[in-house]
Amino acid sequence: MSSSISKLITLAAGVAMTLAFSSGAEAQSAPLSAQDSDPRVMGWMQGFPPPEDKLISQPDSNYFSFPKLRWSVCHLREFLPTEEISRGLGAPMPLAYPSPSEFAEMARGIDALTFMPMNADTPMTWEESLFANYTDGMLIMHRGQVVYERYFGCLEEDGKHAIMSMTKSITGLLGEILVAEGVLDDTLLVRDVIPEIGDSAFATATVREVMDMTTGVQYSEDYSDPNADIWLYSRAASPLPKPADYDGPNGYWEYLQQVPPEGEHGEAFHYKTINSDMLGWIISRVTGKAVTTLASERLWRPMGAEQDAYQTVDGKGVPFAGGGVTAGLRDLGRLGQLMLDGGVAADGARLFPAEVVETIAAGGDQSKFAGFSTIPEGSYTSQWWVFHNDHGAFAARGVHGQTIYVDPTAEMVLVRVASYPRAQNGFIDPTSLPAYQAVAEFLMSRD
Amino acid sequence: MSSSISKLITLAAGVAMTLAFSSGAEAQSAPLSAQDSDPRVMGWMQGFPPPEDKLISQPDSNYFSFPKLRWSVCHLREFLPTEEISRGLGAPMPLAYPSPSEFAEMARGIDALTFMPMNADTPMTWEESLFANYTDGMLIMHRGQVVYERYFGCLEEDGKHAIMSMTKSITGLLGEILVAEGVLDDTLLVRDVIPEIGDSAFATATVREVMDMTTGVQYSEDYSDPNADIWLYSRAASPLPKPADYDGPNGYWEYLQQVPPEGEHGEAFHYKTINSDMLGWIISRVTGKAVTTLASERLWRPMGAEQDAYQTVDGKGVPFAGGGVTAGLRDLGRLGQLMLDGGVAADGARLFPAEVVETIAAGGDQSKFAGFSTIPEGSYTSQWWVFHNDHGAFAARGVHGQTIYVDPTAEMVLVRVASYPRAQNGFIDPTSLPAYQAVAEFLMSRD
Repeated sequence: MSSSISKLITLAAGVAMTLAFSSGAEAQSAPLSAQDSDPRVMGWMQGFPPPEDKLISQPDSNYFSFPKLRWSVCHLREFLPTEEISRGLGAPMPLAYPSPSEFAEMARGIDALTFMPMNADTPMTWEESLFANYTDGMLIMHRGQVVYERYFGCLEEDGKHAIMSMTKSITGLLGEILVAEGVLDDTLLVRDVIPEIGDSAFATATVREVMDMTTGVQYSEDYSDPNADIWLYSRAASPLPKPADYDGPNGYWEYLQQVPPEGEHGEAFHYKTINSDMLGWIISRVTGKAVTTLASERLWRPMGAEQDAYQTVDGKGVPFAGGGVTAGLRDLGRLGQLMLDGGVAADGARLFPAEVVETIAAGGDQSKFAGFSTIPEGSYTSQWWVFHNDHGAFAARGVHGQTIYVDPTAEMVLVRVASYPRAQNGFIDPTSLPAYQAVAEFLMSRD
Repeated sequence: MSSSISKLITLAAGVAMTLAFSSGAEAQSAPLSAQDSDPRVMGWMQGFPPPEDKLISQPDSNYFSFPKLRWSVCHLREFLPTEEISRGLGAPMPLAYPSPSEFAEMARGIDALTFMPMNADTPMTWEESLFANYTDGMLIMHRGQVVYERYFGCLEEDGKHAIMSMTKSITGLLGEILVAEGVLDDTLLVRDVIPEIGDSAFATATVREVMDMTTGVQYSEDYSDPNADIWLYSRAASPLPKPADYDGPNGYWEYLQQVPPEGEHGEAFHYKTINSDMLGWIISRVTGKAVTTLASERLWRPMGAEQDAYQTVDGKGVPFAGGGVTAGLRDLGRLGQLMLDGGVAADGARLFPAEVVETIAAGGDQSKFAGFSTIPEGSYTSQWWVFHNDHGAFAARGVHGQTIYVDPTAEMVLVRVASYPRAQNGFIDPTSLPAYQAVAEFLMSRD
């Protein structure tokens, strides 16, 4: 393989992996602060043309590494082929807001909240946490009203932000809807839904095991190992042309057809993105529709989204069901509110059976869940994270700090999009989860 | 250069050129009919996954050749990086429609119209012309009301269609707005606006000559000549990574910096897409904004568009000002109506000075115009085509049959998007321009 081709492939690899996983090129020393790495401060892509050192270009394999990441999370479509998740053509369903003075008072109250980060002995204010977490957008809804909304960095109210692995939760929600409606039987084996899965390790897993990520499938993400599965996966997923001598899988779905087994199905939760792609394929097979089409028909249109969302695709037009979605902050708020309200949209229409959210909120098998130190009591089901805390909270989560956090007890939906320098939420949770609890309690105290 | 890299580059070349120009891979024999080449009939991209022979993939350099073209014109973002032209967040401005019975009656009347195609001796009905022209969408507005609207092939009312070189007319309209508002001086030389244009042939052209495409610049589009400028332009424009040994221009704007002279500025109209890219750069330089941002701020938002549009970009994020836009049919109708109404939106707001449209509608210097047999009396100004006919009609036009046709006398706006097998409108005009005249007269006869 020529070095040019190798470079292309490495670049392409970045496409898939960085949307869902740890970045391969993380900062080794203390990164720039949120304020100093603000893309407007950095000057990324300013000027016509931008100076060479301010250019973030598609042929730049570092576009998704910090600090360029802080610009790129709002501009993925400018690097990659995408499919639309249409909001439809009508008027959006407006979100409810308190009066401007009430809104301002609430913002002051929340900004001044203090909480104790995990493993810390010094309290932090809510507002400090926004910067500690490299927040790009924060929306808090209480009892259906937006009580807090701020934008930072690359994001503005009419912009959109990559949601990384929160994409999985949209895929999972669609899957759970289909199960509840009897379209998808989650007790079936994958091979009974998709015969051409062949002798992939997925063949003998149940749909439910795929949904809950309790499959026994080999999938390593050790970036230092050139033979790690992530590299083959990334080459398969890249929308760029394959080199002439490439004979590996082409696209997400061909990759899934050759996954080796590792362990037994059903024994333990293993967070492996390929389960989400497998679920995406299952969903498309039983509905005859792309996940983008379903997300539009079942969620974006009927919930009255104000912006289209979009999803990156592989070279065959298959949406990345494990990490490819970009969306507007308020629309993520609408999605969270839809979850809080058990499937009922703001206009009172029921979009899916109440049992969909009940099943998700109940969580998965905690005895099978391990490996996430900041969520010691958690579980994962239908591609959602469940905290099993006093408030019954559950969440969509994505690398670099993305979350839709639903707290049924506080009747709170919190959406944060962010561009934290490191990928894993384990680094971000200590100044996030206690903050969410604090704001939940604050909101409850005002009831 | 390795053959793989060559293949990549050839593929990439297709990206830029096919959006604005003749396709290099045209059908040699009689093409399939509109009905037989309907992408739903062809089965393109049906199935999860589609069978190999129904797949239209990004790494397929033929994706923009007929008959695949008929699917791809509605799906460009699934192949290429793009920038959004935002409609904003509010409710769209509804288009006016007659009552359903009046609408149906009008449709019957228009469908039954007959006209004599150019150079023909047999009349054709309006409805026959829709298929003769491989129409994907047809919208006719009369006195601000939608009186005819039909979708075919890949397009539906909530879909979007590549508008090819109609993009130029959006760029030109933005330029003309800036001239009218005093932001852009069209008597300046390009080098006085963009000093780093260097010794490019563009340096000594006036902004007006760029806007009207009367520059003397070398730019050949002979696809059979491997040294034709189109190939270098396409390599420059490709958003894919450049090969290691590539030392040519990178991006639209670097290409413009090395254009050789050919003839004298101001002497004659030469339809060369690089003028549109030059104008795009000029616009961005004087406004500090991308053309996508301006199209959103000045047009899509205030005219109440119902869908975002989008524009393809080069590897540095520069929108293709000569051919990169994709938009919804009704939004193109809104744009045409805005032109007919001299810059006043449907809600009565004036979006730009009336002289903008007056200047465009007055046309350019007909004595400098030649080479378009179907528009013998025409001219081209501000990137719009002016027919200098009895009705004072003018139009945006793009290859494969795209048009926004504005007839001030009939108070008619007609938008057609299409995927005609051959690129040049010279093949499509004979069954189009007389049909437009016929429907204009029909509408006037009902007044």
